Amino acid sequence: MRLSRYFLPVLKETPAEAQIVSHRLMLRAGMIKQASAGIYSWLPLGFKVLRKIENIVHEEQARAGHIPMLMPTLQPADLWRKSGRYDAYGPEMLRVSDRHDREMLYGPTNEEMITDIVANYVTSYKTLPLTLYHVQWKFRDEVRPRFGVMRGREFLMKDGYNFDLTKEDALHAYNRHLVSYLRTYERMGLRAIPMRADSGPIGGDYTHEFLVLADTGESEVFYDSEVTDLTFGDREIDFDDKAQCAAVLEEFTSRYARTDETHDAAAFNALPEERRRTARGIEVGQIFYFGTEYSEKMGAVVQNEDGARVPLHMGSHGIGVSRLLGAIIEASHDDKGIIWPEGVTPFHAGIVNLKQGDAEADAACEALYKAMEAHGMEPLYDDRNERAGGKFASMDLIGLPWRITVGPRGLKNGVVELTSRRSGESEEMPPEAAIEKLVQIYAGHL
Amino acid sequence: MRLSRYFLPVLKETPAEAQIVSHRLMLRAGMIKQASAGIYSWLPLGFKVLRKIENIVHEEQARAGHIPMLMPTLQPADLWRKSGRYDAYGPEMLRVSDRHDREMLYGPTNEEMITDIVANYVTSYKTLPLTLYHVQWKFRDEVRPRFGVMRGREFLMKDGYNFDLTKEDALHAYNRHLVSYLRTYERMGLRAIPMRADSGPIGGDYTHEFLVLADTGESEVFYDSEVTDLTFGDREIDFDDKAQCAAVLEEFTSRYARTDETHDAAAFNALPEERRRTARGIEVGQIFYFGTEYSEKMGAVVQNEDGARVPLHMGSHGIGVSRLLGAIIEASHDDKGIIWPEGVTPFHAGIVNLKQGDAEADAACEALYKAMEAHGMEPLYDDRNERAGGKFASMDLIGLPWRITVGPRGLKNGVVELTSRRSGESEEMPPEAAIEKLVQIYAGHL
Repeated sequence: MRLSRYFLPVLKETPAEAQIVSHRLMLRAGMIKQASAGIYSWLPLGFKVLRKIENIVHEEQARAGHIPMLMPTLQPADLWRKSGRYDAYGPEMLRVSDRHDREMLYGPTNEEMITDIVANYVTSYKTLPLTLYHVQWKFRDEVRPRFGVMRGREFLMKDGYNFDLTKEDALHAYNRHLVSYLRTYERMGLRAIPMRADSGPIGGDYTHEFLVLADTGESEVFYDSEVTDLTFGDREIDFDDKAQCAAVLEEFTSRYARTDETHDAAAFNALPEERRRTARGIEVGQIFYFGTEYSEKMGAVVQNEDGARVPLHMGSHGIGVSRLLGAIIEASHDDKGIIWPEGVTPFHAGIVNLKQGDAEADAACEALYKAMEAHGMEPLYDDRNERAGGKFASMDLIGLPWRITVGPRGLKNGVVELTSRRSGESEEMPPEAAIEKLVQIYAGHL
Repeated sequence: MRLSRYFLPVLKETPAEAQIVSHRLMLRAGMIKQASAGIYSWLPLGFKVLRKIENIVHEEQARAGHIPMLMPTLQPADLWRKSGRYDAYGPEMLRVSDRHDREMLYGPTNEEMITDIVANYVTSYKTLPLTLYHVQWKFRDEVRPRFGVMRGREFLMKDGYNFDLTKEDALHAYNRHLVSYLRTYERMGLRAIPMRADSGPIGGDYTHEFLVLADTGESEVFYDSEVTDLTFGDREIDFDDKAQCAAVLEEFTSRYARTDETHDAAAFNALPEERRRTARGIEVGQIFYFGTEYSEKMGAVVQNEDGARVPLHMGSHGIGVSRLLGAIIEASHDDKGIIWPEGVTPFHAGIVNLKQGDAEADAACEALYKAMEAHGMEPLYDDRNERAGGKFASMDLIGLPWRITVGPRGLKNGVVELTSRRSGESEEMPPEAAIEKLVQIYAGHL
């Protein structure tokens, strides 16, 4: 993309209404604009990152064998009356009446609707196991929306639901989701720690939240320092293999890691003192196994091998897709702006032309631009007629992890400069070498 | 995808509530399920086609230089008061109050919101030209929703908005959208004819609708038979070149083609009789130039080169993304089911195993499956233990354009059968030759 043809309205001033750094930086970097309280327009740069995150979620769900679909944003109230949640949900549910005074609501989650769908079509155990998910806009009418996309009202969530014949199968689905989520967050450059969670109003015995450590997190967290050494990495795993998935769950959840809601001071204090850690965390996902509660209420019953009719064992599993942009920025920024991890960066590198209009500099930038595209990378070329200082400040603010700086002086020696946003270190090299280095860096991310 | 692990709830019976063929076939093929009147869940097969169509729209918008973003579904009423449309819009607008009694609405379109965004950030002509678009769910509270996704209430639309300094520039944006839409529809296997449209309540002098000819279309259309001979094809075009885009507009709109709303009997009857055609059509898109009306009301004003403050010239341009599934099926089906064009098919070919459990047949199917994936194609392998007749009927119903049939008898002679859904013709060939033929067929579509 050439910046002269893009729409990137960066702000010089820090918006007064933003209390946390990710909100400030998303506004300043021209990623979002508030439409009304807790409701945002995603400007081109923000939308680009949102789509990258959504795509990673889709790819990892596919790897785990989960099946994508899409439920609508508006749901009939009657579905929620069947589960008993219509009245119970309270003022966070946005209730709507249509022109025929039919009662509807803007879905905050989809347990009722998906269970109704499965109840409609699935009659035999032979269709199982089955995990369906969607990535759809939800609405929760927070009384005080704040912190930008971190606690918005209209938000994008991936929510998935497993349907299994037995508790044992459903717990495998639970473990499979845990493995899949570990991969998902790592691809986004995040270390998200599964922590024992409170099952809350949705009920259920098994639930973990995934928390990203950040000073601005909404939850206080307590953990064994060893949990931060764990990495899933690129290990091969067979998602159908119950033992393999259970072993990963064991590895990642056997050490102490809890939020303030489930904190057990005695267990925490039993750890060696040097391994006890207290910090703040941002919740970016949650997995649940809750048994047959919804399938009984919504009639999701199948015939088992013996011909008996049994309710399905279910769980629901969510990733806060739009919230993740805030969480990533909270975990990865400095005083100049955002620092995108390579897996989610909106553009793979910025190209800064120090002397726009200089025939040689222009030609070198164009050649770099085309070479990046030829390798499947997306460059952002600042081709505006601006001072170098302003161009650098914009690139630092929007946080592309790599920048290639091109100027007449370097070109005389046959070199450009490749700069890491994270370390700030620059290295001079021929243009071809800069491209080669970027190809290596992004090898696992294209 | 292996069918034993997919969720494809095909129906044997024809649902009574569906009046038109696309609605019937989408229900029977397990693509959609009604959630409430005019609101649908997209089951996995339907969602897959929806995403394919959305991706084609995004790719063609990118080619034309238009910039993607995303506006929220809920909008503040005050924005619409500014344009005067809040009261004017009538009962098709779904109005919502939040917990603080703030008036909102579920967006039926986005002229107000996008103009407000541009008014906020764009102050100079230097940022122009600018075309922003999004693909987002909309809501129109139709009094009698029907025909499935063809006239739903919650529907997915691409709507784009151009902002230009002069009428001349805005008309180039208009022409550019026309060219881009021609490409878009052709990639989906559709012949969509631009027809002079009525500008309706949105106002404006220049507007064309794109209509797909189909017996079940909602509009009566009148056209010169020569328009159906026109094809955009894969010609190269420079979307920045005003003359090139204007020439395409001229080529595709100079012959008579109108809907009943703008029909001019005298002009039509002036055509040679053998070229006069009357038919029915489905509207799948519309382009508009409407001048400075919204920019004046919403304050989208910039400084021009002389320092004077002038309102921007705008247009809005829409493609009915979810409706397109219905339109494609109306235009491409037979009495056995859907016939997907190669550009939008949910899977590139079906693999039917005539004798599941036969070691040789199973191995041959697995090899074909892996070979298709290795070539970037997605197969749907019917690996269920069902009769061949049932497998064929399901494949015909869901409409994959190609089927590979594998059985012990053929394998003895080293062949499988490749069948065209459209022509019904089958050809025996070695498995490698079938793969090679599919690679050629899909060369332009992967």
